[in-house]
Amino acid sequence: MLRSFVHRIDSRSSNPIRDARSVIGICQSLQSARGEVSGAALATELFQAYESLDSAAREAFFDLLVTEFSPNPVEVGRAADMYRADPSQANFVRLQAAVEPPRQELFRRFNLAQGGITVLVGMRRQLLKTLGAHPDRAGVDADLTHLFRSWFNRGFLFLQRIEWRTSALVLERLIEYEAVHQIQGWRDLRRRLEADRRCYAFFHPALPDEPLIFIEAALARGMPAKVQPLLDPEATIVDPAGADCAVFYSITNCQEGLRGVSFGNFLIKQVAEELGRAFPQLKTFATLSPVPGLGEWMMNGDYPLRVADHPTAIRKIIEKLRGGQPPEPMIGPAIQVELSRLCAYYLMYARRGKAPLDPVARFHLANGARLERLNWMGDTSPAGLTRSLGFTVNYVYQLADVERNHETYANAYGITASPEFQRLARMGRRAYESRPQPPSVDASD
Amino acid sequence: MLRSFVHRIDSRSSNPIRDARSVIGICQSLQSARGEVSGAALATELFQAYESLDSAAREAFFDLLVTEFSPNPVEVGRAADMYRADPSQANFVRLQAAVEPPRQELFRRFNLAQGGITVLVGMRRQLLKTLGAHPDRAGVDADLTHLFRSWFNRGFLFLQRIEWRTSALVLERLIEYEAVHQIQGWRDLRRRLEADRRCYAFFHPALPDEPLIFIEAALARGMPAKVQPLLDPEATIVDPAGADCAVFYSITNCQEGLRGVSFGNFLIKQVAEELGRAFPQLKTFATLSPVPGLGEWMMNGDYPLRVADHPTAIRKIIEKLRGGQPPEPMIGPAIQVELSRLCAYYLMYARRGKAPLDPVARFHLANGARLERLNWMGDTSPAGLTRSLGFTVNYVYQLADVERNHETYANAYGITASPEFQRLARMGRRAYESRPQPPSVDASD
Amino acid sequence: MLRSFVHRIDSRSSNPIRDARSVIGICQSLQSARGEVSGAALATELFQAYESLDSAAREAFFDLLVTEFSPNPVEVGRAADMYRADPSQANFVRLQAAVEPPRQELFRRFNLAQGGITVLVGMRRQLLKTLGAHPDRAGVDADLTHLFRSWFNRGFLFLQRIEWRTSALVLERLIEYEAVHQIQGWRDLRRRLEADRRCYAFFHPALPDEPLIFIEAALARGMPAKVQPLLDPEATIVDPAGADCAVFYSITNCQEGLRGVSFGNFLIKQVAEELGRAFPQLKTFATLSPVPGLGEWMMNGDYPLRVADHPTAIRKIIEKLRGGQPPEPMIGPAIQVELSRLCAYYLMYARRGKAPLDPVARFHLANGARLERLNWMGDTSPAGLTRSLGFTVNYVYQLADVERNHETYANAYGITASPEFQRLARMGRRAYESRPQPPSVDASD
Amino acid sequence: MLRSFVHRIDSRSSNPIRDARSVIGICQSLQSARGEVSGAALATELFQAYESLDSAAREAFFDLLVTEFSPNPVEVGRAADMYRADPSQANFVRLQAAVEPPRQELFRRFNLAQGGITVLVGMRRQLLKTLGAHPDRAGVDADLTHLFRSWFNRGFLFLQRIEWRTSALVLERLIEYEAVHQIQGWRDLRRRLEADRRCYAFFHPALPDEPLIFIEAALARGMPAKVQPLLDPEATIVDPAGADCAVFYSITNCQEGLRGVSFGNFLIKQVAEELGRAFPQLKTFATLSPVPGLGEWMMNGDYPLRVADHPTAIRKIIEKLRGGQPPEPMIGPAIQVELSRLCAYYLMYARRGKAPLDPVARFHLANGARLERLNWMGDTSPAGLTRSLGFTVNYVYQLADVERNHETYANAYGITASPEFQRLARMGRRAYESRPQPPSVDASD
Repeated sequence: MLRSFVHRIDSRSSNPIRDARSVIGICQSLQSARGEVSGAALATELFQAYESLDSAAREAFFDLLVTEFSPNPVEVGRAADMYRADPSQANFVRLQAAVEPPRQELFRRFNLAQGGITVLVGMRRQLLKTLGAHPDRAGVDADLTHLFRSWFNRGFLFLQRIEWRTSALVLERLIEYEAVHQIQGWRDLRRRLEADRRCYAFFHPALPDEPLIFIEAALARGMPAKVQPLLDPEATIVDPAGADCAVFYSITNCQEGLRGVSFGNFLIKQVAEELGRAFPQLKTFATLSPVPGLGEWMMNGDYPLRVADHPTAIRKIIEKLRGGQPPEPMIGPAIQVELSRLCAYYLMYARRGKAPLDPVARFHLANGARLERLNWMGDTSPAGLTRSLGFTVNYVYQLADVERNHETYANAYGITASPEFQRLARMGRRAYESRPQPPSVDASD
Repeated sequence: MLRSFVHRIDSRSSNPIRDARSVIGICQSLQSARGEVSGAALATELFQAYESLDSAAREAFFDLLVTEFSPNPVEVGRAADMYRADPSQANFVRLQAAVEPPRQELFRRFNLAQGGITVLVGMRRQLLKTLGAHPDRAGVDADLTHLFRSWFNRGFLFLQRIEWRTSALVLERLIEYEAVHQIQGWRDLRRRLEADRRCYAFFHPALPDEPLIFIEAALARGMPAKVQPLLDPEATIVDPAGADCAVFYSITNCQEGLRGVSFGNFLIKQVAEELGRAFPQLKTFATLSPVPGLGEWMMNGDYPLRVADHPTAIRKIIEKLRGGQPPEPMIGPAIQVELSRLCAYYLMYARRGKAPLDPVARFHLANGARLERLNWMGDTSPAGLTRSLGFTVNYVYQLADVERNHETYANAYGITASPEFQRLARMGRRAYESRPQPPSVDASD
Repeated sequence: MLRSFVHRIDSRSSNPIRDARSVIGICQSLQSARGEVSGAALATELFQAYESLDSAAREAFFDLLVTEFSPNPVEVGRAADMYRADPSQANFVRLQAAVEPPRQELFRRFNLAQGGITVLVGMRRQLLKTLGAHPDRAGVDADLTHLFRSWFNRGFLFLQRIEWRTSALVLERLIEYEAVHQIQGWRDLRRRLEADRRCYAFFHPALPDEPLIFIEAALARGMPAKVQPLLDPEATIVDPAGADCAVFYSITNCQEGLRGVSFGNFLIKQVAEELGRAFPQLKTFATLSPVPGLGEWMMNGDYPLRVADHPTAIRKIIEKLRGGQPPEPMIGPAIQVELSRLCAYYLMYARRGKAPLDPVARFHLANGARLERLNWMGDTSPAGLTRSLGFTVNYVYQLADVERNHETYANAYGITASPEFQRLARMGRRAYESRPQPPSVDASD
Repeated sequence: MLRSFVHRIDSRSSNPIRDARSVIGICQSLQSARGEVSGAALATELFQAYESLDSAAREAFFDLLVTEFSPNPVEVGRAADMYRADPSQANFVRLQAAVEPPRQELFRRFNLAQGGITVLVGMRRQLLKTLGAHPDRAGVDADLTHLFRSWFNRGFLFLQRIEWRTSALVLERLIEYEAVHQIQGWRDLRRRLEADRRCYAFFHPALPDEPLIFIEAALARGMPAKVQPLLDPEATIVDPAGADCAVFYSITNCQEGLRGVSFGNFLIKQVAEELGRAFPQLKTFATLSPVPGLGEWMMNGDYPLRVADHPTAIRKIIEKLRGGQPPEPMIGPAIQVELSRLCAYYLMYARRGKAPLDPVARFHLANGARLERLNWMGDTSPAGLTRSLGFTVNYVYQLADVERNHETYANAYGITASPEFQRLARMGRRAYESRPQPPSVDASD
């Protein structure tokens, strides 16, 4: 809000290097003795100067962060030699000091002024966009990531229920951030916060108005298969006392600048525990998730089951779905079964390295969830059809098994799945390939 | 409170190594894949096990933290070589990863369970006591310090006024922690929180009941010279509206385990700003400080003015004061002047390396304060007589000058002092030595 | 929200009397000894039963509150006789007890259950609608009013700033309740809470989500004359630091059931004080108010200046405005002046009894404000044209004069107005009548 | 705290009437039109003036509240006649208005200034002390009581747990107010707030630092019989998880000025419910209460069992206990049984009118508790011996029976007691009297 009144460096300035240098100059003051006393004032000055940089100047600024604030290779080498020769703690401490880039202390001092974290998180968001073209900036990113891992340590975050009583400032951000199933204004949001819904977010004490990640759950009778009824603002409100399933239908990381500092796994489990306490009659905690890599994989996957190899009928329907078109209502059950097997196969056997290829599967399986059920036409939105070919999948979080599942996965990427799901995937495999299969664990053991 | 109900490992266990190994085993689990899912439970288990170690087992535990959780020297050396050969960011990131000890992630995971920070801060407090005898544990200390500097970054702390309305839990800790002028029970504390006093502390959001550092101020008419009237629980309450001076008479770091993570300088200045807003008529912000190194220095300082060289009368009175005895009421003004010159000399010219020898002087001068006035018999308590020979000194914080003073000090240890104070110190120097003098700055410029 | 799950008495029940009697039965239990112990449970039962009454049954219920819960006339008479014969305090206390209707204690016990106040305030809202047809229910209304005056005593209310950070639950109610200038959804509301606006409301501790009254202010340079620019969601945000006037453009009583328990006067003055503290450069605190009785009075007022008597040109334009049509842009200045005189005359001389006829004038003048300025075409909305003939008026709250103005008004309905406003009104009077004029006070004295 | 800086009317003023009149003058302003606008300022002025009255002037002030602020008897009589002739609601409303004394509105306006409630509650405390000598002031007391019943309505109070984390300001008041078992300083208080204790208080939102009533409970294994172990600051802390009984050992009304506005019954039951939720394993909720009227009744009761009629051995021991002396350790079991029967008889049969004579019995029995068990030497403090002859009694609150017990009591003062207790009391009665007995209810029915 204040931004409108802040004086900005004239953006038509023709000299990005000079502008960047001027911001770097403030950075140097902030890091000097002056910064110890007048850190807050200097940091505030810095934020305004940084915000006023145009994109060319920002690029120059990032480069200067690399060239001017990295550790001295000669000193690093010398300290490393000493440590190798004598791996004493004194030498180790000296080495650590030599390796820590001056950037680290600079970034820490950002926090001396109000809003410093916000500026830093925003800076990393912008930096990330440039990393592809500028791999030499990886050290700056590593420093920010190191700092954020420490600052946004799980122990400092607090879980807060988001309800209609919550600040409009926060609610507005939910509308803005929700990435999985866009929120269509205040009426839509209000429905998602009614008596049969729950929404929780993690916050950091220094950013009390800024959700870091949030999750939306519906309390239902039976495990839902379809997304659209959950998103309908006119959907009848269910009496939560009669629900036996909590279904997580959306989880959104809000801060692109915190990428790689993950708290999603903590969030799901903590919310499941909260809901279990509040509604002891809940028996199932499950997600209603997309299969976002399915469409792409069916078209271009380097597997024997490339679309070209599918029978024509299947190929046609896949192409239609990829175009965001719903299938004929009269589509034969055989084709449905066929596609379901393919999807189950994809989720259990398609890999990137050793890990599952599907990003959503990777996330939930690594968290200790179990592949439970596949739902044909669970998401009929254009995006749902294009990316997931209309499928949704329920991952189940059974709190007692989560640790075991997680270890199975962590050790050898073993996937836990319900017997029914395994059967489907095996049928897919038998039909299409004859490779050795990765380990899988039967949840019914 | 809960500790009484916690099961403890039998302290008569005859095998400290085995006990320490068992705790290290939990540490390893916490750091493994299991720790990602069940971190909170493992960390809680770890805390209880750690708390139950007897001192021999704790020693063994510290040693295992060195041997089992330090970085691999060979890998470090290899990464350093690569960086030296090609100081690219990719190599730098690799080097950083190699240098970061596994301890760091372990310590971060402590925070997954309630109370993790408290355990870690306590662990460092115990570790610090052993560092003298075990310099090889410096790396563990460096890791904890690095983590605490990040976690207790100034930007996360919040300033809170402590008043009689504050939680008894917090007030009780003030009574326990106050190190400068002990608080004699609740009645004494209550007086220190009356209308003419102010007390402020820094807190961390994760430790809302635990003051990190606190400062006590009195609102007074004129700059006080004597400590005892401020500490008298029966002292008449002054109308704060008539005060023109805020005097800081005590500042206490509460957490030994956070040594080296300083926030004292921020506290004084922020409190001075708060008080200035609340009481615009305040003209002076000053401390009423001891000169804690004076007595020792007069007896044993390696200066020409060792006690042996003093005239007999002076020597006698110094010896008396060192013994905690007040001087005769009839002590001649000449002797008083003599001692004052010595004290002023000590504060301005006695050095440890280039920095002032007196620790309190070091703290306030580094913060940008100015030596303002010396007060004979400002503290007549036994400790005050023994350590400070009864002197108190007022350091003045003039917010407009603090940055300049700090830079003068930071560049070449230049000391800012009032003209009167400089005159006294110069007289001391002229009388006792003829060495070159360090730079000093005249506050009246 | 809960209402949907509550069992309701079948609304097709053909017997309203029986339904009402059944609710009255619960009332009697609540008032009995049982109510002392099980008040909360009984009151909750009562609320559900009351809420389930259809309108016929509610009518019957109100009648039963009169017949069954009024004081006994015989006892009242006897107690009054005793008091007249001997006006001792003992007799007075006895009389008071006789006069207090059993309803009073019944209503007090509503408050034993969560939500009791809300039910009672809602009950009075429904009762008020029936008072015209049922003057015999005035006693019930008097009891509720007595109770509310005590419960909603100014000392219990707290002023709270409403901002975008406020709970959406509260903000939604602002959208719902705003009566003066309807809020067109969340975007409109957000604009009214930007940096150049302020909104404040009174709340009661027992109803923390329920604003009782709220006021909207704009910070402006110069005293605004026109309403529409203030209501434009696209209006540029003004830097509040440059404002010299706070203009109150809307004040809304939210609770119809609290009619007659006024807090509006406290609100305006307290908000003016708050704003004066926050923005010391503010020089003027003024309203931008409608003249809601003007149109009606010009058409039907029992004054010599009935519309029939106006010159045709004036009559035509009045009729046009009354129809919600804006005037020709080319309307002559003479007609403008003519209408302004009429309006000023109306505000200062048109009376209902001795009080001003215009309800908004009555409110602000009774609060100690001063009639400052009349603005032609200050409100060009259809309602503004129809009711106020497009006029707005600024009432000025000069805190130093408010008490004096209020007393002048309270003693003999003397109106304070600016010299310019008085001149205009006098011209109006001279032109249209020759009656004796009510006292007026010159604000320039 | 502020009081020390407030200017006071010179207390040596020789004219109490004049001082009282001057305060009454401010009262009249506060009630006038001026009071509507400048109520806060006037009320503040009034509080200071009232507080400065000496006791003679305060007496005069109370008299003037009677003579100047009572309703007009003639008007009251006229309104009552009209109501008797025609008991219409209009006439009723008129009568109510005539009967309401001007004091009522005056007192309501006290609340316009900060601290108004505190002043009023304090005023009633002082007034109550004078009522015995000045029964004509009963009307003033009735007005205050009426107001307080409305303001301190149960629905507005909030229950708050008092723990060591609570504000020292509040805790200090517990030390000050505790009337049943004095708190011996902060160490004693801290013990009463340990893990095996609970303390709860009711607060009013307008007096957040001022407990109105508080209750202290101990969590114990088995129903405690003796007071002293509960009050021992050195008592071992019990693991609350193992407790099966919550014993309320002290309940204190803090505000003498709120006498007659009772909330004690709500407090006990609400706390019992809270504790039952927090510790589901609790089976018994009981008090450990004194029998404060026993000693006096045994000496001077107008019953056949006056001390003079007792056998000498009994008489001697009663006299000894009355003197605060503990009995010989060797006292024979026959005497113990004898005294227990007397005590049981006293609690069940000794009456004042129809209600039990013992005030503590009256309170708990009216609340629906049951007489459970008598404990010989349950309280060996001097006060316990003198007043209760060393007995304690456990009243049990069985939440399921409380309503029925209360109704039994409310209808005909029927007392519920355990079979054992009844047996004891019957034996007492058989031995000492042959009168008809009041109804009693067997809890075992």
